[in-house]
Amino acid sequence: MKRMLISETPEHIGESVRLSGWVHIRRDHGKLIFIDLRDRSGIVQAIIVPDHTEAYETAKGIRNEFVIDMEGKVKSRPGGANNDKISTGGVEIEVERLKILSVTEGTLPIDPSADIDDVKLHTLLDNRQLSLRNGKVNAIFRVYSTLLRAYAKAMTQDGFLEIKSPKILNAATEGGANFFKIKYFDRSAYLAQSPQFYKQAGVGAFERVFEIGTVFRAEPHFTTRHVNEYTGLDAEMGFIENFSDVMDELEKTMMSIFSDLRKDCVTEFALHGAEFPAEVSIPRLKLTEALHILEKNYGKTMADGEIDIDPEGERLIGEYAKKEYGSDLLFLTHYPTAIRPFYVMPNEDPQFTDSFDLLFRGLEIASGGQRIHNYEQLVKNIQAHGLNPDDFKHYLDNFRCGMPPHGGWGLGSERIVQKLLGLKSIKEAILFPRDVKRLVP
Amino acid sequence: MKRMLISETPEHIGESVRLSGWVHIRRDHGKLIFIDLRDRSGIVQAIIVPDHTEAYETAKGIRNEFVIDMEGKVKSRPGGANNDKISTGGVEIEVERLKILSVTEGTLPIDPSADIDDVKLHTLLDNRQLSLRNGKVNAIFRVYSTLLRAYAKAMTQDGFLEIKSPKILNAATEGGANFFKIKYFDRSAYLAQSPQFYKQAGVGAFERVFEIGTVFRAEPHFTTRHVNEYTGLDAEMGFIENFSDVMDELEKTMMSIFSDLRKDCVTEFALHGAEFPAEVSIPRLKLTEALHILEKNYGKTMADGEIDIDPEGERLIGEYAKKEYGSDLLFLTHYPTAIRPFYVMPNEDPQFTDSFDLLFRGLEIASGGQRIHNYEQLVKNIQAHGLNPDDFKHYLDNFRCGMPPHGGWGLGSERIVQKLLGLKSIKEAILFPRDVKRLVP
Repeated sequence: MKRMLISETPEHIGESVRLSGWVHIRRDHGKLIFIDLRDRSGIVQAIIVPDHTEAYETAKGIRNEFVIDMEGKVKSRPGGANNDKISTGGVEIEVERLKILSVTEGTLPIDPSADIDDVKLHTLLDNRQLSLRNGKVNAIFRVYSTLLRAYAKAMTQDGFLEIKSPKILNAATEGGANFFKIKYFDRSAYLAQSPQFYKQAGVGAFERVFEIGTVFRAEPHFTTRHVNEYTGLDAEMGFIENFSDVMDELEKTMMSIFSDLRKDCVTEFALHGAEFPAEVSIPRLKLTEALHILEKNYGKTMADGEIDIDPEGERLIGEYAKKEYGSDLLFLTHYPTAIRPFYVMPNEDPQFTDSFDLLFRGLEIASGGQRIHNYEQLVKNIQAHGLNPDDFKHYLDNFRCGMPPHGGWGLGSERIVQKLLGLKSIKEAILFPRDVKRLVP
Repeated sequence: MKRMLISETPEHIGESVRLSGWVHIRRDHGKLIFIDLRDRSGIVQAIIVPDHTEAYETAKGIRNEFVIDMEGKVKSRPGGANNDKISTGGVEIEVERLKILSVTEGTLPIDPSADIDDVKLHTLLDNRQLSLRNGKVNAIFRVYSTLLRAYAKAMTQDGFLEIKSPKILNAATEGGANFFKIKYFDRSAYLAQSPQFYKQAGVGAFERVFEIGTVFRAEPHFTTRHVNEYTGLDAEMGFIENFSDVMDELEKTMMSIFSDLRKDCVTEFALHGAEFPAEVSIPRLKLTEALHILEKNYGKTMADGEIDIDPEGERLIGEYAKKEYGSDLLFLTHYPTAIRPFYVMPNEDPQFTDSFDLLFRGLEIASGGQRIHNYEQLVKNIQAHGLNPDDFKHYLDNFRCGMPPHGGWGLGSERIVQKLLGLKSIKEAILFPRDVKRLVP
């Protein structure tokens, strides 16, 4: 008999089926043995009675997380709806044949069937092989997978070509401190901390490109929103009029993602008690306006009158956007030249740039803007930032060959999921996160 | 006026339109200036007559690869079909307004409008910013992008969850020589040369997973089929009966990819004079059978009677599969234990493994098979391979918690495109390839 998924069983009441999966919970009631069987589609209750001698003898030795294979009859089970994943509470399986495919060794450090909200993050991460089997944790990665598909879909529909840019670079020119150094045969090289230069090169050939790729950041941060390796959702588009075109495209992309999540991730959001983000027009505030609002409404000022915003400021202005505009997202625009890289297009007022950050529920999830496309202007701006144009020869080659006005963004995939589901740390949204201390599992 | 794509112009004959793009070719005929304008959708001829004084004066200064913006009338152009991309030969544009958005600097080292079949590979790669604008080269990456989407689609439809696994590892246990070493804060780490251990961990939580991710290989190869950084298309699936299930799934995936390519990449294949692969059942030959055929039909033997196959053998047996079975693909199965990693499931005959390679037009594009899922067996096999189980603690943790019978594959995305389009080197199928000598651009 061919294996069936648990989610398909309600359509086969009265029939014999074969199921395989993990023992989520094993319970005994008198002489009956109950097993909640878990597969990728859901959880169902199975009953083993002493009459089926062989199955019953096998069941006696079964413990949580054993992998088993069974055949049995699907029975309707009125009133039953008792699981944390996908409800198959309407049926149960009367087991006739039972086989153990795989056993567990020793005591399991985490019980995936338990509520693990109070388990410490490092314990969850140290025992990823088990915490990922918990319904709520598992759901995070179903949402994550949906996000990846939704992003690629939105981009492809709008004529963006998917590219893969190199992660090993010969030089760490764009701010040396953030780069991991590698030994590359008989010389040194560096891990890419963004696909910035390469996606711009992509514009010269394909006009519109996007990349879903690994980003490496050698920053010694210890926060709930930083990791040293993450997956960036990048895009770059040519023939824009100004940087509003870039925000328009990113806004459209986010709405498309939200719409796909609302369709595909109802169970996952419910498990986390998470609300789908509002699908409303994203407000756009100049950074200076935002700082003014923070001072006026929240009494919050930046040290030394600096024109920049810190995480607390982002959280508060995010609250403001939700209250005033009903929006979970907020564009902050026109960041000062001093705190943006050399390739960002200066505003008419040269103190500022045609750039933006996108906040989601008070956390920066994207940075973007228009880029300089004129060769001479770019060379001058490299110099104005105290850098040497000779170090950027290959990057500059693009601008010697005719580059259209263009702009784009870098979006952090894990931060989106963190804020979608209200996770305390970004590390909960990564299968096997990497930070200053953590390189295993 | 809003910019229109060139591919849309044939539906707007007699109307005024605005177009933007690159000057593919500029030609003068008497007093008329002709420009072949190129954008991401195609190429169209534009004519500038002296009557439109301002546009004409601007056009005089225009050279190949300038970025321009124009308005003009769409006219039908009988008999015209003269471009190497997407045919808009049926129309031409009578230019009324013309603006230069961006100029070129100095002499262009490559002319993207020329036939560059005879340009040397290193010249194409050194000047990627221009070679990518050539119609034929550009088409490679449209095929590549279609492949990525098609793979993700096929996997998602069959219940595989997309994951992202870490690329920075704490140890280079699975064969130290292939790993790049990195400086990770105050210690050493290594770049992942496959997501093998992590996708297996994924099976424990999600049953079926796939990953599209960067793979780093520190192999000092100088061949047409090796690079040091590539994009792997990995998959791993639980609850298999045997390794035929894995081949069945990979076969289904390849056919789904071929079918999508046939739908979406007609122009690109035509440009390369490439044939779509046959959509036929993939023959499966034991490696020993293949070696027997090579000896009998081609007089080819391996040195010292070794049970392995070299690139020439793969090429010849690929020819054989095409001739005998009409198939561009071929599974070779049952590789010897001695040349497969410790995690591969031994065959009933312990000299061999339940593993396979997939050849495409005579080139290995995938390796896969069933994996050992039993903890004790895995520990023993690690030892049998002369390795220390203590070095695999985190990997082994998965097998202490109940792992189903499972298997999977690693597929090289760039090799598929190389063979699809008949490219001489894998490097032609990578935007910015990395080899022992090349780290730029």
